[in-house]
Amino acid sequence: DPVAPVDPGEAEDFLRRCYAENPRLGPVEPRLAIVRAQVAATGTYVHTTDELSFGAKMAWRNASRCIGRLYWRSLVVLDRRRARTADQIFSLLVHHLQAAGTGQLRPVISIFAAAQPGQPFARVWNEQLIRYAGYRGEDGHAVGDGRQVAFTAAMRGFGWRGKGEHFDVLPLVIETPTEGVRLYELPERAVREVPITHPEYGWFAELGLRWHAVPAISNMRLTIGGVHYPLAPFNGWYMGTEVGARNLADTDRYDVLPTIAARMALDTTKESTLWRDRALLEINRAVLWSFEKAGVRMSDHHTESQRFMAHIRNEEKAGREVPADWTWIVPPMSGSLSPAFHRYYPEMDLRPAFYLDDEAAA
Amino acid sequence: DPVAPVDPGEAEDFLRRCYAENPRLGPVEPRLAIVRAQVAATGTYVHTTDELSFGAKMAWRNASRCIGRLYWRSLVVLDRRRARTADQIFSLLVHHLQAAGTGQLRPVISIFAAAQPGQPFARVWNEQLIRYAGYRGEDGHAVGDGRQVAFTAAMRGFGWRGKGEHFDVLPLVIETPTEGVRLYELPERAVREVPITHPEYGWFAELGLRWHAVPAISNMRLTIGGVHYPLAPFNGWYMGTEVGARNLADTDRYDVLPTIAARMALDTTKESTLWRDRALLEINRAVLWSFEKAGVRMSDHHTESQRFMAHIRNEEKAGREVPADWTWIVPPMSGSLSPAFHRYYPEMDLRPAFYLDDEAAA
Ligand code: HEM
Ligand code: HEM
Repeated sequence: DPVAPVDPGEAEDFLRRCYAENPRLGPVEPRLAIVRAQVAATGTYVHTTDELSFGAKMAWRNASRCIGRLYWRSLVVLDRRRARTADQIFSLLVHHLQAAGTGQLRPVISIFAAAQPGQPFARVWNEQLIRYAGYRGEDGHAVGDGRQVAFTAAMRGFGWRGKGEHFDVLPLVIETPTEGVRLYELPERAVREVPITHPEYGWFAELGLRWHAVPAISNMRLTIGGVHYPLAPFNGWYMGTEVGARNLADTDRYDVLPTIAARMALDTTKESTLWRDRALLEINRAVLWSFEKAGVRMSDHHTESQRFMAHIRNEEKAGREVPADWTWIVPPMSGSLSPAFHRYYPEMDLRPAFYLDDEAAA
Repeated sequence: DPVAPVDPGEAEDFLRRCYAENPRLGPVEPRLAIVRAQVAATGTYVHTTDELSFGAKMAWRNASRCIGRLYWRSLVVLDRRRARTADQIFSLLVHHLQAAGTGQLRPVISIFAAAQPGQPFARVWNEQLIRYAGYRGEDGHAVGDGRQVAFTAAMRGFGWRGKGEHFDVLPLVIETPTEGVRLYELPERAVREVPITHPEYGWFAELGLRWHAVPAISNMRLTIGGVHYPLAPFNGWYMGTEVGARNLADTDRYDVLPTIAARMALDTTKESTLWRDRALLEINRAVLWSFEKAGVRMSDHHTESQRFMAHIRNEEKAGREVPADWTWIVPPMSGSLSPAFHRYYPEMDLRPAFYLDDEAAA
């Protein structure tokens, strides 16, 4: 419950660990005394910039579904706790996307105001800052991203009209306690996109596929030492399979495999020709190739798997276990080619952490 | 512990369920009275043929790592409880492979004598009835199946000499309480093999790859109603990825992907060309194509996934939940193309069941 008073035990656990891992912050005891008094008086407390920053990095380090944790120390933390109005929040979200970059992307998190005990709080409805609209056509097929059909319909309810095309960037929906729900269009300069072409198949360009450069999750609550940050969007860079094996390939998303198989003239009359796997491979090659050609950072699942193994070694050297969810860590294609496949992991709910609450949108 | 006395509660649970699901077996109460008396007097009891047969089917139905459970009712159960000597066991194992077939394979289980409380029992050391030897070469590379190097070395200790080639069928190692360890060569007629060729790449045949038709797991203990059957080998047919994505591709097994990539002249200087995935795809196409051409039953991972979904629907209609281990059920390639990927499963340790005990071989 994001609006419950802070649990003093969780605050203390976090602070002890934070100060132990960061000797330059000095002794924790005086700080604990202050925090205990703040919590007793107000039901919550205020993180220092250092605590906020290291807490966010720990939350990434603890994200058991994330294969990309090797670089957890390099997270850029933007302290946005003072923003209050929807306009302020919007312009800081645009700034977030610009800070993330359009080529050599950097992992960034923007942390907005903490939830206060018993008080309403600001949040963003979108699951990611950049997502494409989805429209259910007459024939039941979706135009655009099938996953966004309900969200897109809700946007219509707020008067937003998309072009009805395959890659219409959705408006940002910012809800604040004082202003209610407000919609904002992202400026073009904040939305770098990459058209998908193929290293060998010229016809691939004709499919008109594209994807945005920056994956920035905006619907997860960050919790640090018992304090909840309901609005704390973060981004890394894409691993190719997220776009090629899931977003573009899932049957309830863009479902492009049958189209690609038809263009490749594969025998789709029986499964044993592995036509699905062949089409999957080509879209994934195309995605990696296109991002590389466009100079937009993206990693392949082999490289990220190796990095994750390096992360585990680093963490073990530091005396920490790496919590991991096998079903999310193992890439969605060529699973057993990943070293991550061939072992199991402890599944621990360590904090600080990111949590997905019930969706704000209907 | 396979040699502990039977747990009367587990016996009763099994019998009640077995008789409830099979009304033609009549009322369970009289049978329970007999079993209780047998267990009280001897520490164990003897299954009727019907109980043995249905118990084995239930164990398959409960195998949470098995994607192939749709046909659990069709399991052919061979009652081999009276075999005692290694010679008898060997000839019945050969018979098992012949009953499984060499083309249109059938799922078969051979159930040998139950463990008796406090008594030693017969078992087979091999993990499958048919496996290929592995030899560690001077340069550290394995010839044959890397997974069988330790087992193969143990065979040398018993005086067995393989040809030192890539596909030497290992001898069966049968251990009985009275005769100790005895080795047997499988006759050629019991070992159907399929040479691997490719639908398009003629050079594939030159790689000299082959695999055996029948996967027959021989190192799992079957437990039914508290009674343990330490020797109860069973087989189905292969799902293509077991051979193409694991046995031939795993780096600690046959590790063929670099060779295939070289033949395909793929760019292996960077991971983002997905050369591993491309080689993986071609070996899997080759395996499915070769088995099909040879008339040996094998299914692809798409078809088995669909069957598994049908199995779940069937079981739900029958009022039963399907225990499943996501990490084993989702195929090791193109994971997210499988409908099995897109959901979670209850993980329950239901009995009857197959268990893997510590390996017999050093
Ligand atoms: C730097 C590059 C990064 C890569 C390559 C990466 C990769 C991934 C991948 C592949 C997933 C699974 C996504 C899916 O299957 O839907 C994931 C999930 C996740 N990542 Fe990362 N990540 C990166 C950066 C970050 C950062 C900066 C954070 C937070 C500060 C983060 C936190 C998470 C969390 C919380 C999840 C789980 C999301 C959920 O439950 O839906 N990651 N990551
Ligand atoms: C009929 C065709 C069958 C197919 C296609 C099939 C498929 C599979 C597959 C793909 C696996 C995972 C193997 C691995 O990744 O190593 C598996 C595991 C398993 N199957 Fe099946 N199976 C079949 C028949 C059977 C039968 C007849 C039984 C028992 C009566 C059975 C019991 C099991 C068990 C116990 C496991 C887990 C093995 C372990 O823990 O190592 N399966 N099956």
